[in-house]
Amino acid sequence: MNILFIMYDQLRFDYLGCAGHPHLKTPHFDRVAEMGVRFTNAYVQSPICGASRMCFYTGRYASSHGAQWNGFPLRVGEQTLGDHLRNTGMDCWLIGKTHMKADAAGMARLGLAPDSMIGARQAECGFDSWIRDDGLWAYGPDGYYDEKRSPYNEYLKSKGYDGENPWADYANAGISDDQIASGWMFRNADKPANICEEDSETPWLTSETIAFIEQAKGPWCAHVSYIKPHWPYIVPAPYHDMFGKNHVPQAKRHDLERDNPHPVFGAYMENRIAQAFQRDEVREKVIPAYMGLIKQCDDQLGRLLAYMEETDTLKDTMIVLTADHGDYLGDHWLGEKDLFHEQSVKVPMIIFDPRDTADSTRGISCDALVESIDLAATFVEAAGGVVPDHIIEGRSLLPWLRGERPEWREFAISEYDYSATPQAVKLGLNPRDARLFMVFDGRYKMMHAEGGFRPMLFDLQNDPDEFDDLAKTDSHADVLEWMYGMLAQWGRRMSQRVTRSEQEIIAMRGASGRKGVLPFLYDGSEVPEELTQTYRGALRQTYTEGGD
Amino acid sequence: MNILFIMYDQLRFDYLGCAGHPHLKTPHFDRVAEMGVRFTNAYVQSPICGASRMCFYTGRYASSHGAQWNGFPLRVGEQTLGDHLRNTGMDCWLIGKTHMKADAAGMARLGLAPDSMIGARQAECGFDSWIRDDGLWAYGPDGYYDEKRSPYNEYLKSKGYDGENPWADYANAGISDDQIASGWMFRNADKPANICEEDSETPWLTSETIAFIEQAKGPWCAHVSYIKPHWPYIVPAPYHDMFGKNHVPQAKRHDLERDNPHPVFGAYMENRIAQAFQRDEVREKVIPAYMGLIKQCDDQLGRLLAYMEETDTLKDTMIVLTADHGDYLGDHWLGEKDLFHEQSVKVPMIIFDPRDTADSTRGISCDALVESIDLAATFVEAAGGVVPDHIIEGRSLLPWLRGERPEWREFAISEYDYSATPQAVKLGLNPRDARLFMVFDGRYKMMHAEGGFRPMLFDLQNDPDEFDDLAKTDSHADVLEWMYGMLAQWGRRMSQRVTRSEQEIIAMRGASGRKGVLPFLYDGSEVPEELTQTYRGALRQTYTEGGD
Repeated sequence: MNILFIMYDQLRFDYLGCAGHPHLKTPHFDRVAEMGVRFTNAYVQSPICGASRMCFYTGRYASSHGAQWNGFPLRVGEQTLGDHLRNTGMDCWLIGKTHMKADAAGMARLGLAPDSMIGARQAECGFDSWIRDDGLWAYGPDGYYDEKRSPYNEYLKSKGYDGENPWADYANAGISDDQIASGWMFRNADKPANICEEDSETPWLTSETIAFIEQAKGPWCAHVSYIKPHWPYIVPAPYHDMFGKNHVPQAKRHDLERDNPHPVFGAYMENRIAQAFQRDEVREKVIPAYMGLIKQCDDQLGRLLAYMEETDTLKDTMIVLTADHGDYLGDHWLGEKDLFHEQSVKVPMIIFDPRDTADSTRGISCDALVESIDLAATFVEAAGGVVPDHIIEGRSLLPWLRGERPEWREFAISEYDYSATPQAVKLGLNPRDARLFMVFDGRYKMMHAEGGFRPMLFDLQNDPDEFDDLAKTDSHADVLEWMYGMLAQWGRRMSQRVTRSEQEIIAMRGASGRKGVLPFLYDGSEVPEELTQTYRGALRQTYTEGGD
Repeated sequence: MNILFIMYDQLRFDYLGCAGHPHLKTPHFDRVAEMGVRFTNAYVQSPICGASRMCFYTGRYASSHGAQWNGFPLRVGEQTLGDHLRNTGMDCWLIGKTHMKADAAGMARLGLAPDSMIGARQAECGFDSWIRDDGLWAYGPDGYYDEKRSPYNEYLKSKGYDGENPWADYANAGISDDQIASGWMFRNADKPANICEEDSETPWLTSETIAFIEQAKGPWCAHVSYIKPHWPYIVPAPYHDMFGKNHVPQAKRHDLERDNPHPVFGAYMENRIAQAFQRDEVREKVIPAYMGLIKQCDDQLGRLLAYMEETDTLKDTMIVLTADHGDYLGDHWLGEKDLFHEQSVKVPMIIFDPRDTADSTRGISCDALVESIDLAATFVEAAGGVVPDHIIEGRSLLPWLRGERPEWREFAISEYDYSATPQAVKLGLNPRDARLFMVFDGRYKMMHAEGGFRPMLFDLQNDPDEFDDLAKTDSHADVLEWMYGMLAQWGRRMSQRVTRSEQEIIAMRGASGRKGVLPFLYDGSEVPEELTQTYRGALRQTYTEGGD
């Protein structure tokens, strides 16, 4: 069996037909959900691109692997999906974005050449790279945000789009009065991107995926990682005007949220992105474009599924559809992601397993508390391996797909390191104090903030919209104590004992005695009969044999 | 300045003259204490050889570096004293024991050749090896406990001691009726070791140290790591009969400890080592030998100090005297180490700094809560470097040596992973549940045990001998809550963000905006005046410049 691990960037859990969106129809996402299981409580371990992806790729929590924010390198030697899957004989390929930053200093310390196969895999987060493009070619006074080569920009140039950065000037810009209308400006979000639809990012990556499958010898895992519907919010015709004002839902926000907000929440509500999304004209321009981008993703998924049916690869390929985090889009007075409201930290998670063992669950939805790190364990089991549970902290989801009811986690954890953001500056925090932790037990969701702040608490049973922060008063001290107990339990988890498996440790038990380490003998008479052979053996050596 | 980092194995904090031992005189230890500062509340981060040493050498807690017990490899790439000191231009040498187990699998994964310099340093815990001998050449039915080469055995053979393992047959055995009387048997502890005193382990390693200093070019750090007074408890003449029964203190144990003991403590009290040390004849044989071994260590320290005075190296060498853990010697009904009573987890810690900046503190003792991981930070500062506090979790002790009163930690942490021991089997625990945590705030000492057990709690102010476990009842629920709060705070520490320093993160703040990442613009008017250059720059590019 192969694994097609498809990730969309910044796709909200509720912007799919199968998730109940009132206006956005996504028949191809819905079809995969019908073929498989849709997990309705899937949470990322950090609601930010880079950190979230490192959790997906290592199967470990952000504070276990340490790459806690965009641009924080993943430490050399940290094991990834590529390491684990190759151990089972499955290749592991990348098609698109990872947001991985290589640990160049660590690689140099270990003398790893970046152009060696080992070095390249270290630098590419364990993947073999079919094509890598992180899809964000912003440029400013300090140069490019991303200085890697851009295969997508090269593609556009080969198709005749001119300039150094056609990603910015065509794929992510419209035209207004014969001038480039930057997709960075929300007022331009309703314009058609200045590019042929088939040359835009989502169809281009889909073509690359088809080209990969065309030549791939199984078993393979392919991480198809789209940049969209991530900003800049602009989409080519015909998607640019499929949706309009009348399809834009009311912002889920409440004045209660602005009344004595948690200081960190308050700082985020005041940042530029939040201020922009608090304006109706921004939501009315952006959300139709965001929906258009998702509609294009759905059409391209349909194209991919059709290709796989024609080539008969669908029947032996597991398909996973998910996202690295959501998008506030003005809900909770915020834009972007970063915090732990459902719009940000909850993601779509749809898994199709072609094997008969999954027949009993096709088309169902499952509300188990799923963490994004569970996919790494799921893939290792799907590839026929044994999950190295001393390294991978997630749990295989295959039992759910088989219709079993496994014993499961009591709470989900997510983390956010905002040490490099303006909010940390505004709050006057040292980098190590600008860290947030979410604990969600299926009903209560707590946010703990380092740096001496009070927690935040929501009761999603009575307040599913997360408007009423119950930690503003002492009314829920007992619940907070319970949530803090779970966070403390998680804090004591065994996350770094990665060089010894549970099985290896069990095999070590008693081994030193059989190698003559006997610091308890008075005269030898302590040796129990059944151990005579073992210990007398050691003692005979110390008496006469000299060890030979 | 050079650093002479001397570690004794299993040396109890209170078996030194300067620590108030009634019978054991250690003038040379005492002299270094007079020249420097004696830290009277120094705790190791794990009371077991291998794990404790990995904490000393990385400056990190056991569950941060993951090498949590003897024989658990230190993960490849984990940075050590060698990495940090070489960054400052100081060499870092090993003379003696580390108990380091190389991460052979991880090195192979990264293609590191064990015989390359980088590979060798990875395998030797970051040290360049002047001489390495872990000093435990036990042999049994399954072969040698340690399969590395033993320079000490080679030395003995070169001196004419015969057999394959003269370590066992001469250095650690006596003679009785013309037969080797194994030092493994406590009944033989009062016999003189069957070896010339100058050929025994402690003088041999001291000679190696002198040979190292003879040729060393500064600045250097030398980790001189003696195996003694670690068992086998046997010492050559004249040390074998310097002490006798009348010098053996009463065992510090109380019937209260055997009344409904904590299950983990109970399991340890019942193991073979504990049972042996519960016998008076064992303590009366072993403790005089243990004292003789320490007396020999003191004499060899005197020899080393005399050499350094003659060669004038004392004036520019920092000297540190410490141990990896203690030895119960029958106190608390236990033998060996492993748990968190003072006899096991507290160690001697004496630091002599030759520089004038330390003149004001010579001869004082300091009761600050010191952790063994503090030495790594101390050495980096002493070598003129900046402590990488995103990697090293300890704190430099130099402010105390300068007579300052730095803001200091509220509690010390120690951990113990007994997953590979018979006690875990007896308690029916999975490896991941056989983990203990100590929190000590200077008055209360709590032990938390994973696996669903109650905690243990001692009040060292009212019960300095730690006989009365206050967690047997609910009487101290408030104290336990306070201690668990500290443990939870520690559990949330930032231990893996090792690829980005605090300074690098501060420098990252705002960087993406200057590279044109502007996901908040409606029409450009949001750009504040002072940022016009920055943002218009980015926008001009997206309008017309095409990024060139």
